[in-house]
Amino acid sequence: MLRVGIIGATGYSGLELVRLLLDHPLAKVVYATSRSYAGKELNEVFPGLKGHFNLRCEEFKLEKCVEACDFVFVALPHGLSEETVPKLIKAGKKVVDIGSDFRLDDLSQYETWYKRKANRPSDLKPIYGLAELNGDKVRGAQLVANPGCYPSATILGLAPLMDKNLIERQGIIVDAKTGVSGSGRSLSLSSHFSEVTENIKAYKVAVHQHTPEIEQELSKLGSGEKVVMNITTHLIPINRGILATCYGKLKEKKTTKELIDLYRAFYLEEPFVQVMPEGVMLGTREVSGSNSCMIGLKVDERINTVIVLSVIDNLGKGAAGQAIQNMNLMSGFEETLGLPRVGLIP
Amino acid sequence: MLRVGIIGATGYSGLELVRLLLDHPLAKVVYATSRSYAGKELNEVFPGLKGHFNLRCEEFKLEKCVEACDFVFVALPHGLSEETVPKLIKAGKKVVDIGSDFRLDDLSQYETWYKRKANRPSDLKPIYGLAELNGDKVRGAQLVANPGCYPSATILGLAPLMDKNLIERQGIIVDAKTGVSGSGRSLSLSSHFSEVTENIKAYKVAVHQHTPEIEQELSKLGSGEKVVMNITTHLIPINRGILATCYGKLKEKKTTKELIDLYRAFYLEEPFVQVMPEGVMLGTREVSGSNSCMIGLKVDERINTVIVLSVIDNLGKGAAGQAIQNMNLMSGFEETLGLPRVGLIP
Amino acid sequence: MLRVGIIGATGYSGLELVRLLLDHPLAKVVYATSRSYAGKELNEVFPGLKGHFNLRCEEFKLEKCVEACDFVFVALPHGLSEETVPKLIKAGKKVVDIGSDFRLDDLSQYETWYKRKANRPSDLKPIYGLAELNGDKVRGAQLVANPGCYPSATILGLAPLMDKNLIERQGIIVDAKTGVSGSGRSLSLSSHFSEVTENIKAYKVAVHQHTPEIEQELSKLGSGEKVVMNITTHLIPINRGILATCYGKLKEKKTTKELIDLYRAFYLEEPFVQVMPEGVMLGTREVSGSNSCMIGLKVDERINTVIVLSVIDNLGKGAAGQAIQNMNLMSGFEETLGLPRVGLIP
Amino acid sequence: MLRVGIIGATGYSGLELVRLLLDHPLAKVVYATSRSYAGKELNEVFPGLKGHFNLRCEEFKLEKCVEACDFVFVALPHGLSEETVPKLIKAGKKVVDIGSDFRLDDLSQYETWYKRKANRPSDLKPIYGLAELNGDKVRGAQLVANPGCYPSATILGLAPLMDKNLIERQGIIVDAKTGVSGSGRSLSLSSHFSEVTENIKAYKVAVHQHTPEIEQELSKLGSGEKVVMNITTHLIPINRGILATCYGKLKEKKTTKELIDLYRAFYLEEPFVQVMPEGVMLGTREVSGSNSCMIGLKVDERINTVIVLSVIDNLGKGAAGQAIQNMNLMSGFEETLGLPRVGLIP
Repeated sequence: MLRVGIIGATGYSGLELVRLLLDHPLAKVVYATSRSYAGKELNEVFPGLKGHFNLRCEEFKLEKCVEACDFVFVALPHGLSEETVPKLIKAGKKVVDIGSDFRLDDLSQYETWYKRKANRPSDLKPIYGLAELNGDKVRGAQLVANPGCYPSATILGLAPLMDKNLIERQGIIVDAKTGVSGSGRSLSLSSHFSEVTENIKAYKVAVHQHTPEIEQELSKLGSGEKVVMNITTHLIPINRGILATCYGKLKEKKTTKELIDLYRAFYLEEPFVQVMPEGVMLGTREVSGSNSCMIGLKVDERINTVIVLSVIDNLGKGAAGQAIQNMNLMSGFEETLGLPRVGLIP
Repeated sequence: MLRVGIIGATGYSGLELVRLLLDHPLAKVVYATSRSYAGKELNEVFPGLKGHFNLRCEEFKLEKCVEACDFVFVALPHGLSEETVPKLIKAGKKVVDIGSDFRLDDLSQYETWYKRKANRPSDLKPIYGLAELNGDKVRGAQLVANPGCYPSATILGLAPLMDKNLIERQGIIVDAKTGVSGSGRSLSLSSHFSEVTENIKAYKVAVHQHTPEIEQELSKLGSGEKVVMNITTHLIPINRGILATCYGKLKEKKTTKELIDLYRAFYLEEPFVQVMPEGVMLGTREVSGSNSCMIGLKVDERINTVIVLSVIDNLGKGAAGQAIQNMNLMSGFEETLGLPRVGLIP
Repeated sequence: MLRVGIIGATGYSGLELVRLLLDHPLAKVVYATSRSYAGKELNEVFPGLKGHFNLRCEEFKLEKCVEACDFVFVALPHGLSEETVPKLIKAGKKVVDIGSDFRLDDLSQYETWYKRKANRPSDLKPIYGLAELNGDKVRGAQLVANPGCYPSATILGLAPLMDKNLIERQGIIVDAKTGVSGSGRSLSLSSHFSEVTENIKAYKVAVHQHTPEIEQELSKLGSGEKVVMNITTHLIPINRGILATCYGKLKEKKTTKELIDLYRAFYLEEPFVQVMPEGVMLGTREVSGSNSCMIGLKVDERINTVIVLSVIDNLGKGAAGQAIQNMNLMSGFEETLGLPRVGLIP
Repeated sequence: MLRVGIIGATGYSGLELVRLLLDHPLAKVVYATSRSYAGKELNEVFPGLKGHFNLRCEEFKLEKCVEACDFVFVALPHGLSEETVPKLIKAGKKVVDIGSDFRLDDLSQYETWYKRKANRPSDLKPIYGLAELNGDKVRGAQLVANPGCYPSATILGLAPLMDKNLIERQGIIVDAKTGVSGSGRSLSLSSHFSEVTENIKAYKVAVHQHTPEIEQELSKLGSGEKVVMNITTHLIPINRGILATCYGKLKEKKTTKELIDLYRAFYLEEPFVQVMPEGVMLGTREVSGSNSCMIGLKVDERINTVIVLSVIDNLGKGAAGQAIQNMNLMSGFEETLGLPRVGLIP
């Protein structure tokens, strides 16, 4: 039984890790830290765990963590993982970092997009943990950078097109919509119920920090030519779910059917990506609570543009689910172990 | 592997059975019927199943059902189970009926509350399938009547008080709130999004058809004296969840702590019922997607009344989850097999 | 044109006052204070006002307020009005206080229910501003204590029964449901979107601070015998709206029709209270954005109890709307001036 | 007092007309028809009107309508206005048609996009009723075609750019999000609460029938060169509100500030259009219940694209509000009469 630690267990990603690992046959959460709730039982913080799971939240202590755990998930605010993770790596632990600190190859991008100076030790070799594209590298990795929620949906949505060089790499537009749990459990007016409900609102227009992450990974596919794109993010009054509506200018004419066939071939072996038949409407709820990504697409021949719809659960495939998928691969387990594939409907 | 059939698979209870049984280690859905969608794949009706589960919906044919299945769930509109179930019983199948046709002992009550004449064969001996109270009978049953959603929450919420005769049996008040999925997938103005959202509304005030079911089961506990109560039901703009707020007049003074201790003792062995410590706030989302029931309580000493809060997922413990719990018992499986205990939060 | 000031203009009640007074023909907001946003334009805080209303938020200064305003609304957190209001009264201003500091006659109740010591000058004679019961006194008042949201719905719902002494005064049960805007604009985990949506939750069970206010006002009606009741409050994922479901034990048999007739007669002259015909379902959205209260009722003869359903908009009749209704009366205007009577549907 | 009739009064647009006209000082609803509710009082259909407005719904009779009304709003399903409106026009009535039957100049487009053959009498000269662009023509019109909800938001959002020929006319992308009330009050699975809530879903991808309407009106601006664009529509679990996120490829470099200045100048005289300062986040709720349109924009210099955010209330500026704005102009009233400018927040 893999002994698992969660650094930052009382945020929503942390809780989702706990929930999903409860039913994992080969892993068990044995160590959990929280700055805000240190000393409290996790099931006091989340009463739904009462009777089913118990563990006292601690303040993070390196020694204790190293002793207690074989595998560590780090779910800390941006900028904090960078300090903690290298120590765990040095101590020989396998780590999935759910934050952004290890996602970007070019450290200068952190200043541009995150407004902070990166401070990553140069000997760390994090692997970008989108298993559908990077599975082999993940298997051998000691440190995996778990992709962001928008990047997960967007990259999976566009990868087959990039791989075959079918769309223009300059000017891709991604109009993304997210539920509120993606903003986490920290209080802010923009997550205050009365400000969010009965509202649709754009935010971080043309400045979202996930932009370079998406560009970086898409640029690696196909021709390798640099991708420059826009992501405009919108807050929607639901709890879980991301829909990325991606608009790509086709280089040559393609029919909807041709592209669907291409996507099916590309994702044929992937248990967590499903490509929908033409005309099937996709909703975020289809994947709510699961680790699945569902993709639909349509060519608008009038403007020679392909519209790709990609949905995930931002806490599932967009965070904790994907982290466990990575853990499975890094630990030599079956990739799908303990991960729900079907969403909670209705 | 138990071969399972679902009669009425394209309603929300049917879909929840499919979803939950996907991960059941000893049972497998092999037969599914639907009047509206006969001929269609289940995963056309629910695209979220695509890639994960497939079965073509059929029109119900007795012979086919008998041949294909060891165990049958019947999820038909009120009044239709009565026709179908006796044939399945006669053919030797074990059946859990999720509708109301077999819940009431006194058939005359169907005329009073359901405005229809019951037509149940007298040789049928359905067991009321609330396993926490009736587990032993369920184990030996061939036909189990699955409790209604409001009765599940209410009876579990009040059983310990009735068992010890601590509250007046005349005049119990249950103010119940439900999510909309309890109204099913059939179209009606009262389930139309724009009529429901941003709204709180009472319905079926003092005439809800679940009243006699609750009275019947509560009356069997403790002194056996007949219970007469009011349930006032409210529609709330959420998908899943019931909160039954129950008000009972205490016969003698009791403290909150005394009653919590009593409840804990009563439900000590029950894996799906959790009693909260004093002061813990209960929300329906704690149990969303699970088969759990969570109970909290408080004595209002100023009016010598105990207020019991009982939450379930109406599609889980209130329908499909409980049905599978009954299947487990009837089949000699472990009671908790394949049933989530922790809700999807957030 | 009445020159109006709002002390605490950037909470939801303050904003609702601004919105409603925009269309008031005889009053105009000329002064607005805010501790959090002093120095900012109100339409920076609420962009929806841009182009339609502008006023810079100031820190409260007594002299400035006295000079600028004829009439002052005070919307401050509990305990702060007590300090500010006496100065305004002394300066000869008419004041409606939207908080709780002037609602209770018996100051010792503040310690019991609000856990704070009241410090109200003994020469202040606040009038409880429920115009339907107290209209004459409000007309002549200099200081009006605006009723709480739950009390507004509950007292209007039960007043005719109390007036005629038709129900037991001990043990009235009020099961109340509220939208989230009632908790205001201050951040708290219990108003965080992801904690509230898809959830139904009870709170402050048997300890809600509105209890003594309701008891106080109901006790004044009919026989004058003291009322002792329970209010159990529930948080519902909507923005605006309160539904108070009130359960009263009838002293003698009454039919639903008899009671509806009684209610109609009682509220015959009231422009903002509507009594529904038997069987009409009431939802909070019917009154959303308006100053109306709608009441329906039903006798459950099986337990000889009347169930009264009373709905208001907590920011309308439950706060800002009612405050303007009081302003109208105190200023000799027509009672209904500037107040919407029909809710925003859907 | 203008005597107003509403043909199709029991849909959401009809109800919104009733609600808004209740407070109109120069117009009064005197005639209302409904196929589904003929014979019922409007306030039986919408209990919120009880005590405040009453009128019996009738079946449409031409003579009765002509006799009773000076002005008629027609809110019928697509294809039905075409039959009714010409008779009213012939009888000399002024008409605003809220449906789509009179919006398109090129009748062949109805076959392409609506899948029906248009049958409009050639002597009818409907004016497209977007007053901000067409005000003068509307003033003199007898028949006004009220714009669709998406076109209202989109055309207002893009008009200044088209007018100055600043963006490419081929390949404009509009990613639009709408609340559910836009789908009306007719029952369908796609408006069923449990299918919509906690869900984000695209629909009518690249085939929305509002496409030619937007293209037609935008093409008239600036150079007059034909516009070809894509609108991808998404259903969001809110009641009211549209956000159109419009992506236009800039022909030459422009800064955000330059474009905001341009927009401000363009809409300087318009009471219902507000242009936001740089960086102000726009949400649909800012305009909920009002007739306002709010516009924000941002240039993404990395891909030389301007992103325009335009929000309206689909039942306000997108339907009934705009219809009344047109009525005001056609009747020589002040344009803003009876129309709320500030939304209901929260």
